[in-house]
Amino acid sequence: MTPHLARRTADIQPFHVMELLRRARELEAQGRDIIHMEVGEPDFATPQPMIDAATRFLAGGDVHYTAALGLPQLREAIARFYHERFGADVAPERIIVTPGASGALMLALAATTDPGDEWLLPDPGYPSNRHLVRSFEGVPRALPVGAATRYQPTPDQVADAWTARTRGLIVASPSNPTGTLLDQAELAALRATVIARQGTLIVDEIYQGLTYGVEASTVLKSMDDVFVVNSFSKYFGMTGWRLGWLVAPQAYVREIEKLAQHFFISPSTPAQHAALAAFAPATIEILEARRNEFALRRDTLLPALRELGFVVAAEPQGAFYIYADIARLADDSEALAHRLIEEAGVAATPGLDFGDNQPRRHLRIAYTNRCERLLEAAERIARMRG
Amino acid sequence: MTPHLARRTADIQPFHVMELLRRARELEAQGRDIIHMEVGEPDFATPQPMIDAATRFLAGGDVHYTAALGLPQLREAIARFYHERFGADVAPERIIVTPGASGALMLALAATTDPGDEWLLPDPGYPSNRHLVRSFEGVPRALPVGAATRYQPTPDQVADAWTARTRGLIVASPSNPTGTLLDQAELAALRATVIARQGTLIVDEIYQGLTYGVEASTVLKSMDDVFVVNSFSKYFGMTGWRLGWLVAPQAYVREIEKLAQHFFISPSTPAQHAALAAFAPATIEILEARRNEFALRRDTLLPALRELGFVVAAEPQGAFYIYADIARLADDSEALAHRLIEEAGVAATPGLDFGDNQPRRHLRIAYTNRCERLLEAAERIARMRG
Repeated sequence: MTPHLARRTADIQPFHVMELLRRARELEAQGRDIIHMEVGEPDFATPQPMIDAATRFLAGGDVHYTAALGLPQLREAIARFYHERFGADVAPERIIVTPGASGALMLALAATTDPGDEWLLPDPGYPSNRHLVRSFEGVPRALPVGAATRYQPTPDQVADAWTARTRGLIVASPSNPTGTLLDQAELAALRATVIARQGTLIVDEIYQGLTYGVEASTVLKSMDDVFVVNSFSKYFGMTGWRLGWLVAPQAYVREIEKLAQHFFISPSTPAQHAALAAFAPATIEILEARRNEFALRRDTLLPALRELGFVVAAEPQGAFYIYADIARLADDSEALAHRLIEEAGVAATPGLDFGDNQPRRHLRIAYTNRCERLLEAAERIARMRG
Repeated sequence: MTPHLARRTADIQPFHVMELLRRARELEAQGRDIIHMEVGEPDFATPQPMIDAATRFLAGGDVHYTAALGLPQLREAIARFYHERFGADVAPERIIVTPGASGALMLALAATTDPGDEWLLPDPGYPSNRHLVRSFEGVPRALPVGAATRYQPTPDQVADAWTARTRGLIVASPSNPTGTLLDQAELAALRATVIARQGTLIVDEIYQGLTYGVEASTVLKSMDDVFVVNSFSKYFGMTGWRLGWLVAPQAYVREIEKLAQHFFISPSTPAQHAALAAFAPATIEILEARRNEFALRRDTLLPALRELGFVVAAEPQGAFYIYADIARLADDSEALAHRLIEEAGVAATPGLDFGDNQPRRHLRIAYTNRCERLLEAAERIARMRG
C-alpha cells in the first residue's frame, strides 16, 4: 500500500536525536553506562506537593472533563502567580490551560495563520515551532541568529526579513537550544517592530523560572497584545503530565476557546489538579532549590566543556542547555554525536534538530544530570580525544 | 485591538450546548435542580483498578515523557485486547496512543489532508470531526443521513458525492449523536467504495464497547487499510484523563510519529499508566456492569420519550444517546431546549451542534444518569407540557 500523504508531511522532520536515543538504549541493554545529556526534560521528579494533590484528587475517582479553557481556579492561580512573582497583571480570562506548550502554540497558530502566511523564527530554535507553523499551512521563515546577538533576533533583522506575507515573529526567552534571554527592552523593541507592521508576536516562555544569575521575568509585565506560550513541564517539573498554558490578547480568547473545544475538549484533569499545588510555598521552595542546583550544574559543565575545546560564545543564562560550537573537535556534529555515544557513552543532541544555520557545527548539551555525572562525561570525552 | 484572525476561525463553530450549560449552572447556583442529559461523558467514576494503577505510578514521582507513540507495553496491551475481545489482529506498531480521540483524528487528518481536500462526513455527526478537517485546511462535505438508513451513509450516497477533490470518508460506529451502528458488511461496502476511488476511510470507534443487544466489534477485524480512531474516555470511563488511540495503516506510521512528536511530544504519562489497568479482568467486570446499566437506562428512557411524543425512528444500539425528532412537541429544538431547562430543569443538546441537516427538528438526549433521574426528567417534561 502506497500511503497518500499530505504535502506538509514532506516538510516535517522527526526529532533526529531519537535515532541516537535508540542507539543509546541498545548500548544500555548491552550493559553500557550512558550519560544522557540529550534530554529535554529535568531529571527531577514532580514535586511531592503536586503528586499529593493529584493523588488526593484521584482518590475520589471522579475524573471528568473540565471547561475547555481549564479549571477556573487554575487560571486564577496562574494569574496570581504572574502578579506576585513577576509583577505582571494578567486577567485570568486571558489564560488558556492547554495540553503542554505544544497545545498552546497550536491554538495560537491555528487562530492566526492562513495558508501561505509567513512566521519568522530564530534559527537555531526549537524545531516543533516551525513544524507547527507548517502543519497549519503557514510558512516558517528562518532568521539566522548567532552568538553576536546571543542567538536572538534583532529588530533590524526582523524589519529586513518582513514581507507582505509575514504574519508575525516567534521568539523564545529563555531559548532552546541556546539558553539565552531577551530583556524587557529587547522584547519591547521587537514588539514595536512587529506591531508597526500589523504583525503578531508570540513569546515562548516555556523555560520561565529557569534563569541563573538573573531574575526570571515575563514579557507580560509591560505588554498585553502579544501571545505567550508557557508550560508546567520545565520549571515546575511536570513534563509527563502534559500541561501548559497560553496567554492570548483578550480579543482572541473567544475564537481560541472554540478551537480548544475541538482540538482537546479539555486539558488533563489530574494534571490540572496537580498544577493547583504548583504555586504553593512548599512547592516553590523545592523548585528554587532545583534552580540553584541547575545553576551549579551550568557553572560546573560550562568551564569543563570549554576546557575540552567546545566554544560557547554566548553565555547561557537560562533553560538547561549549552549550545556549543564543536569546530575545534570535529567537522560534523552528527558524526561527533555518534562517536560520543559509541566511544564515550555520552549522549548529546546534534545541531541538526534546531534548524539549518550551521547545524553541523553545533551540539546541544543538556545539564539534566548530577554534577558528578557531568564531570564524568567531561572526563570520558577527554579520554576519547586521547 | 482588532484581532487578526485566520479565515478558518470563521468556519469553526463552538459547542452551542455550552451556552445552555452556562444557564444550567446559573440556575443551579440559584438552588434549582437540573437533570443533565446534555453531557457527552459517562457519569461513572474511573474504575478503581485504573485509579489504583495511576496512584501507584505517581507514588514514585517519576512522571517523565514517554515515547511519542506511547508506552510500548500499552500499545501491546491494546493489540492484545483487539485480539482477545474482537478477534482482530492488529500489530502494536500500528497503534498510536494519543491525547484523546481528538488527538488521534488530528494526526490522521494532518497526515493525509492537503488544502482543499474534501472529506465526506455524515450529518448529523460529531461536530469536531468537521472542524478538525477545516483546521487542517480540508473541506468538510456533509452527507445528509436520516432514520431510513439508521443515520449512516450508504455506498451509493458516497459514490454520488465523490468528486476529484474528495480525500475520503469519516464514519462513526456507534455514532454520536444517533447511537446507531454499522455492521461488518456495511463497513466493507463503504470501504470498497472509498478504496475504489483511491480514497481513505476513517472509522470513529470511540464508543466501542458501549453497545446494547449486539456485540461490540471493530472494522479492524476484516480490514487493515483504514484508520481507526478510539478512546479510553467512554467505555473505559477515562474522559478527564485525555487518552485515546489511532490505528493507522502501516505505511503511515512513520509519518504520523513525526507529527505526534511535534503536536504532543507524548501522551499523558499518568493516563497511560492508568490505562495499563484498563484491560484487567477486574476492570472489565466493572465496565460490563456499567454497560448493562446503560442498556437498562436506554430501555427506560426510550419508551418514556416516545410516550412524551418524541419520535425515535432509528433504534439507538450504542453510545449513550437518543437522537429524537421533536416535531410533535415544538417547532425549534433550540427553543425547546431553553424551555426544557427553564421550565423543567432538564438539559439536552439541540441538533444545532451536530450539523445542518434538520438540526432544529432534533434533540440529543444522553442517558448518563440513573434510571430514577431519567424517569423524573420524563415526568418533568410531561408536567411542562401540561
